[in-house]
This record gives sequence, C-alpha cells and structure tokens, in this order.
Amino acid sequence: MKVIGIEHIGIAVTDLNSSAKFWKEVIGLKHLSLEDVDGQGVTTDIYQADSGKIELLLSKCPDSPIEKFIKKRGPGIHHICLQVENIDDAIRFMFENKIKLIGKEPTIGAEGYKVIFIHPNSTGGVLVELAEKPI
Amino acid sequence: MKVIGIEHIGIAVTDLNSSAKFWKEVIGLKHLSLEDVDGQGVTTDIYQADSGKIELLLSKCPDSPIEKFIKKRGPGIHHICLQVENIDDAIRFMFENKIKLIGKEPTIGAEGYKVIFIHPNSTGGVLVELAEKPI
Repeated sequence: MKVIGIEHIGIAVTDLNSSAKFWKEVIGLKHLSLEDVDGQGVTTDIYQADSGKIELLLSKCPDSPIEKFIKKRGPGIHHICLQVENIDDAIRFMFENKIKLIGKEPTIGAEGYKVIFIHPNSTGGVLVELAEKPI
Repeated sequence: MKVIGIEHIGIAVTDLNSSAKFWKEVIGLKHLSLEDVDGQGVTTDIYQADSGKIELLLSKCPDSPIEKFIKKRGPGIHHICLQVENIDDAIRFMFENKIKLIGKEPTIGAEGYKVIFIHPNSTGGVLVELAEKPI
C-alpha cells in the first residue's frame, strides 16, 4: 500500500456560511467545490491550501454520520483523509493487518474519489479516510 | 497574512506506542522527532507524510490541555496546524479581524516553531494552531 499524503481534513459544521467565511476570508484558502455526497447524507464544501484541503461537512439528513457526530461532540474536526495510490491494495493491506474498516468496499466520495474509512478502534480514536483520486 | 499550508494534524493519544505503531507501521510514515514541549505539558511524536505531518500528543501533566481534552472527549484529533509566513503578521491580522486567540504572544512549540492557537469559538469548533517555521 502506498500513501501519497494528507488529502484533506474533514470538519463537521452546523453553520456552513460562517465556517466557510473563516476558511475563505480569514485563512484565505481558495474555494474548490460545493457538492452533495448523497451516500454520506452530506453537503461538502472544499477549500484548497497549498498542500492539503479543508472539507466542510454539513449534514443533510437526521441519520447521517455527520449529524450523529455533531449530536455527540458538537461541530469540529471529524476525520483525516489520506490519499492512497490504489484503494483496493489499501483495503487488502488493512485486511491482512487486521485493521478494522467501516464497510468492505470503497464508495464514491466528494470529487469522485474512491473512499473507505478505517474504524477509530484501529487507530487510537481517529477516523481515517483512505481515498484514491479518480483518473 | 500568508498561510503556506497545512503543517500538521495534532492527535491526542493515551497510548503512544500503539498510536505510533499505526502511523509508522500501518500507514508507513517516516518518524521525524520525539520531543517534550514543556510549555504545553506534552510529549510530541512527529511523523512526516509526503505533504503534512502527524503530531501525536501525549500528556505529561494532569493539568495539560491534552489531558483536559482527553478527559472530556477521549483520544482523537485535537487540532489543525497551519504554517504561516510570519506569526506576528498573523497575530496582527487576527486581532484586526476580531478573531479570538488563546494568549497574546507566540510560544515555542515542537521543532522550534513559533506558535499561537485560534480559539475554537472563532472557527466553528476547530482548534487551529498557527506556526512560523524557525529559520
């Protein structure tokens, strides 16, 4: 498995306008995309830093993972996404190393990336997303 | 104020060996440094990705910010660090834009960076560190 680097940091938000204003106007990041990811029940609003991105996640459904996270912990950092060269290799590697994944197959995330999440029980409490960039 | 990019993601840990094993042996990141930062009451253990770093934070004192975070939320992602070109310019900019900082002056963090934290109240619940690389 080859990890290319930190692709983005996912942040659960309750007020997209206010959070977007901070990352865009105060920090000065460039806006990249605004997109619904129906499989996760969220709207994603993505900003580009010179290295890595900030992904704001606004829940669209009462039972989405982001809604549950916010109910439990409030808005804040939700996950770290690592870009991998090949998601199938990464899934096989995690399976061989007894690392617990959420689901067995990759799904399509924001920007068309193939993604899967590692369970926080296998990482010391951190939700880690693995993502392969679309060709 | 010029933001250069995402310098690192800080992760509060309770079992440094186990967390280090995940980032080093499973994800395959290169170990960069192990260092006590007495001003924050923590041991930092830093790993380098191709872009950005992972900073594991182990509390050394019962009243450290990391100890308090873990008592409240358990181990997990603690903060995002953005590298800025000049920390004094960044502090001035935040002050002018009514962004609440924790403290008024930069302190010396891991790897000799000059750092200051933005209060989560000004960011939508995210603890953001600003850091200037030492010359």
